[in-house]
Amino acid sequence: VDRVRLVDVAHAAGVHAGTASRALNPATRHEVSRQTVRRVERAAERLGYVPNAMARGLRTSRSYIVALVVPDITNPLFPPIARGAEQVLGQRGYTLVLTNTNNERETESAQIEAMRARGVDGFIVATARLVDPMLDDLGTSKVPAVLVNRYTDSGSLPYVGGDDRRGITLCVEHLAELGHERIVHLAAPADASTGRDRASAFRQAMRDRKLPLAASGIRVCSAITVAAGRDAMRRVLAKDRGFTAVVAANDLIALGALDAMAEVGLECPADISITGLNDAAFMDRLTPGLTTVHIPLHDMGVAAATAVLDLIERTNSEPIGQRLLPVELIVRESTRAAAVLSRPTRALRAAAP
Amino acid sequence: VDRVRLVDVAHAAGVHAGTASRALNPATRHEVSRQTVRRVERAAERLGYVPNAMARGLRTSRSYIVALVVPDITNPLFPPIARGAEQVLGQRGYTLVLTNTNNERETESAQIEAMRARGVDGFIVATARLVDPMLDDLGTSKVPAVLVNRYTDSGSLPYVGGDDRRGITLCVEHLAELGHERIVHLAAPADASTGRDRASAFRQAMRDRKLPLAASGIRVCSAITVAAGRDAMRRVLAKDRGFTAVVAANDLIALGALDAMAEVGLECPADISITGLNDAAFMDRLTPGLTTVHIPLHDMGVAAATAVLDLIERTNSEPIGQRLLPVELIVRESTRAAAVLSRPTRALRAAAP
Repeated sequence: VDRVRLVDVAHAAGVHAGTASRALNPATRHEVSRQTVRRVERAAERLGYVPNAMARGLRTSRSYIVALVVPDITNPLFPPIARGAEQVLGQRGYTLVLTNTNNERETESAQIEAMRARGVDGFIVATARLVDPMLDDLGTSKVPAVLVNRYTDSGSLPYVGGDDRRGITLCVEHLAELGHERIVHLAAPADASTGRDRASAFRQAMRDRKLPLAASGIRVCSAITVAAGRDAMRRVLAKDRGFTAVVAANDLIALGALDAMAEVGLECPADISITGLNDAAFMDRLTPGLTTVHIPLHDMGVAAATAVLDLIERTNSEPIGQRLLPVELIVRESTRAAAVLSRPTRALRAAAP
Repeated sequence: VDRVRLVDVAHAAGVHAGTASRALNPATRHEVSRQTVRRVERAAERLGYVPNAMARGLRTSRSYIVALVVPDITNPLFPPIARGAEQVLGQRGYTLVLTNTNNERETESAQIEAMRARGVDGFIVATARLVDPMLDDLGTSKVPAVLVNRYTDSGSLPYVGGDDRRGITLCVEHLAELGHERIVHLAAPADASTGRDRASAFRQAMRDRKLPLAASGIRVCSAITVAAGRDAMRRVLAKDRGFTAVVAANDLIALGALDAMAEVGLECPADISITGLNDAAFMDRLTPGLTTVHIPLHDMGVAAATAVLDLIERTNSEPIGQRLLPVELIVRESTRAAAVLSRPTRALRAAAP
């Protein structure tokens, strides 16, 4: 590479590399004569040598870089989180860098390791699995790190998320009030808290409403993508046409479900109502507009960045723990009253306050 | 911060920081006794000291990190570019980090400087302005860098983009063939190549079709966002209702124009046809589905990453220069035949091949 290296500076100044290194390093400068320091500095300036990380690190002990690690940059969930985080970090003089793991553990490890080696000051991690030794390791190594959107069961790192369980409960209650009884849940993968909690909240909400859980009641998608949602809905529709509503664990999964319905000539909401979760960008502009749960993604980014800065700068001694931000049901056109109300449903609706 | 620093290692090994630094640095290790090197190394291992960037840099002269600098992470244009770039970089053992400048020059300079200081191997920059001294400086400093989506007039850095001019020409031709004569262009800001080239292509295409350019023919938006598109369209509509079609410089601007039309009770495509540019995610799912130009964003990311790796690893000695990838018009529901065809238009259409 053509980048100016320390050896180039040393050569230009007519000194050994070790001498040039000591001359440019504030911690070791006193070991070299003033004249040499000046000669090396002039050579560095003339060649456009960029002071390297170590020299900077010794001056400030900080890189002023925080990394946000996301599983899938094409999921519209993450840009608002990144924007929120960046707003806080920028105000405090930090740069946010974002890396995308493609949901691959090896990629994630390599990225975090590379960034630790480059002296990144802290991490905001959106890729947590329930069992995640790599993140537990980050927790014990005392590198400032905060989880966002997903947490680990070990609880070794602070966490900021939306109240997913409440979100799914709101969806089930909304559908139940519209007279839906047979409701299918298209779940996110169960190895992450997002998948497990949303499915468990769905089960609980159905039980609370005394609605029976069909055999095809919960179908776990292989990923949180439109394609995985489509595939899961195809499988459900191949076996079961008796349900009238779908609670998707995520907006993208809901979009995939809409696609699978269209393939077999089913319409939303005429035939089947669908709810999403996240209220990602553009979900209000779809046909039909998606009824979904608004998760305060920007605020999650703000809260996660604030938490990681507290860890980096020790500005707050209180433990951060888990923090769940409130969510809100946004009713649009993808949900409507169940076409035919069965007798028990009518009784239920009459009994409702 | 709790991170283990070099001084902690030095303290644990009972040596000065300078000695610890030399002991851990392969380039200066010979200046220290073997015994001391071993003692420092053992202390570093025991404390979990992460070898810093400089030590690594001296071993490999690479960080294996490439940065993608984007102006607005919430513009759906960028995730596919990031995915494409990452695919290539990942295969070659590099990590992609992404930073968001919010279209602010100062933020951009600070980010690039911070990452250069951390030894990032190369840059893919999506924030270029036509006049951009900071990027020219990057060009002359020989840091491997490639522009994507936007270029600078100085041509100091290689560039990979879509064929924007062709894209806008396709939009004008499509609308002209549908009988539209009075067409407004909602342009992107003129300080970037995307704004200037698309507006200039619009002018040229209108001239080639012998269509008159109205006073409100080109309206420059203040940014490439839905809000800026909405604002620009409001201003156009406040003065002029005589046009039947809009060529937007970007999908987000087109969405804003749709909003402004809805505010005054105008329908798309019944009253006004609209075209976008980029074919970002979800544009096929809107109401109406947006007629737009498909830009091969993923391929642009692949090409930009390949180019920057060529620069970093000098695997290709040919200059990269400018590379424009082919684009394609995607006709959806937001465009239809102009309601009333004037006589000259009919004559024009009859004369068309």
